[in-house]
Amino acid sequence: MPFTYERTIRLGDTDAAGIMFFANYLVLCHEAYEASLAAAGIDMKDFFGGADLIVPISKSAVDYLRPLSCGENVSISVQPNLVSENTFTIDYEITRLTPPAKIAARAQTTHVCTSRSQHARAPLPSNISAWVAQG
Amino acid sequence: MPFTYERTIRLGDTDAAGIMFFANYLVLCHEAYEASLAAAGIDMKDFFGGADLIVPISKSAVDYLRPLSCGENVSISVQPNLVSENTFTIDYEITRLTPPAKIAARAQTTHVCTSRSQHARAPLPSNISAWVAQG
Amino acid sequence: MPFTYERTIRLGDTDAAGIMFFANYLVLCHEAYEASLAAAGIDMKDFFGGADLIVPISKSAVDYLRPLSCGENVSISVQPNLVSENTFTIDYEITRLTPPAKIAARAQTTHVCTSRSQHARAPLPSNISAWVAQG
Amino acid sequence: MPFTYERTIRLGDTDAAGIMFFANYLVLCHEAYEASLAAAGIDMKDFFGGADLIVPISKSAVDYLRPLSCGENVSISVQPNLVSENTFTIDYEITRLTPPAKIAARAQTTHVCTSRSQHARAPLPSNISAWVAQG
Repeated sequence: MPFTYERTIRLGDTDAAGIMFFANYLVLCHEAYEASLAAAGIDMKDFFGGADLIVPISKSAVDYLRPLSCGENVSISVQPNLVSENTFTIDYEITRLTPPAKIAARAQTTHVCTSRSQHARAPLPSNISAWVAQG
Repeated sequence: MPFTYERTIRLGDTDAAGIMFFANYLVLCHEAYEASLAAAGIDMKDFFGGADLIVPISKSAVDYLRPLSCGENVSISVQPNLVSENTFTIDYEITRLTPPAKIAARAQTTHVCTSRSQHARAPLPSNISAWVAQG
Repeated sequence: MPFTYERTIRLGDTDAAGIMFFANYLVLCHEAYEASLAAAGIDMKDFFGGADLIVPISKSAVDYLRPLSCGENVSISVQPNLVSENTFTIDYEITRLTPPAKIAARAQTTHVCTSRSQHARAPLPSNISAWVAQG
Repeated sequence: MPFTYERTIRLGDTDAAGIMFFANYLVLCHEAYEASLAAAGIDMKDFFGGADLIVPISKSAVDYLRPLSCGENVSISVQPNLVSENTFTIDYEITRLTPPAKIAARAQTTHVCTSRSQHARAPLPSNISAWVAQG
């Protein structure tokens, strides 16, 4: 079973069309990614802050299947997949839990490990490759 | 005891200074307000959507006491106070739960009930005045 | 020549990794899309507000090529392409103008016209199909 | 004459109530502050990034006078005022330019210079105190 993260859609997530703004689906996916990393004991401040090895997102893709409204509950599943020693992808499924439950979006992000000091790709840190392997 | 809402600070809440962007303290407060309304059975889609009576925010004030970093857990307390038949304020306290626990901010918002059709102040809807009274 | 929109990266666009948060590349693209529609005389409030025909985004894809920092200037080009009578795509190129000028990202969004009253796909409104044709 | 910054309200600034989300008035104010600093030759990446002297916001207050809708143009005036050798305030006025022109909000932020290494208040850096004096 992939890691899942639950969340309520809030007014600040929506726009004047009355539903969640399209860029915020990626915000939800990243929150779920962070929650999954934290559940594996990975320190957020280190990971997104000062480390030499960083794992920036090189690609994102979203299929928007259903609108989401303020007050609706969603769950986001997080499924990482190893691509190479320096690259992984994550597949996300955003499910609206407010009945009737329906898949609201599918998304994928690609992450490539890079050494800041060496300006080059580098193998994933061991805690991240362990997280990918367990996912 | 006032209603409290818990939340983790996420990367998207922070800015390049390494800590939560100052405007996002108000985003957290509004999330807590929405969670408090929802806990009282108030429908978010109606309340922020199509109703004739709306309760927009007329003032906000924040005292920023401590920075908040990605991965830290916070709780936000929500204390509404009736000012008049058409106006209430909410006092918020954002507490960093990640040890050592400390108050990170205090905020207040003022809300004034308005009729869209009559372009004038109007008494609070009964479900909102009940929510204020219980707060 | 495609329509282009210029913008400065602001602190609120960035995150604790010191650069623009990945979801905000799509925010920039949408701003450029809105500016292009406005330049063609299309009313934003109508288009994103109350009309029966809406044109929600069904897909987005972004290639992140370079980080963007607070204070850097970017231009975003907007190139719409007709796919069918109810569907168009937009190709965006985000160029960092702060020297040395470099492409920072490429993105694409897909938009499908839908009738809210009929719950079905519908031909694009004439002002939008004219905007696509001119793009 | 205070520095002024112009901007169009975008879909991503609004919420499901159809107007700009209340926290985003502060986002606009901060954009105007950054534009004013940049116009004075102050480097954003340094100022909000790695310097030892930082000038975080200790208070904000907003009076929301009128709603702002997607597509409307606004100007934001930026009036800094020295309070002490380590503290200044900024008064902002957000004016809707889309006719009829009206003041949409007034805001104030308070900024206190702090040394990260010394964990204590410190006099403003000379380029910032010059910017305050000229404002």
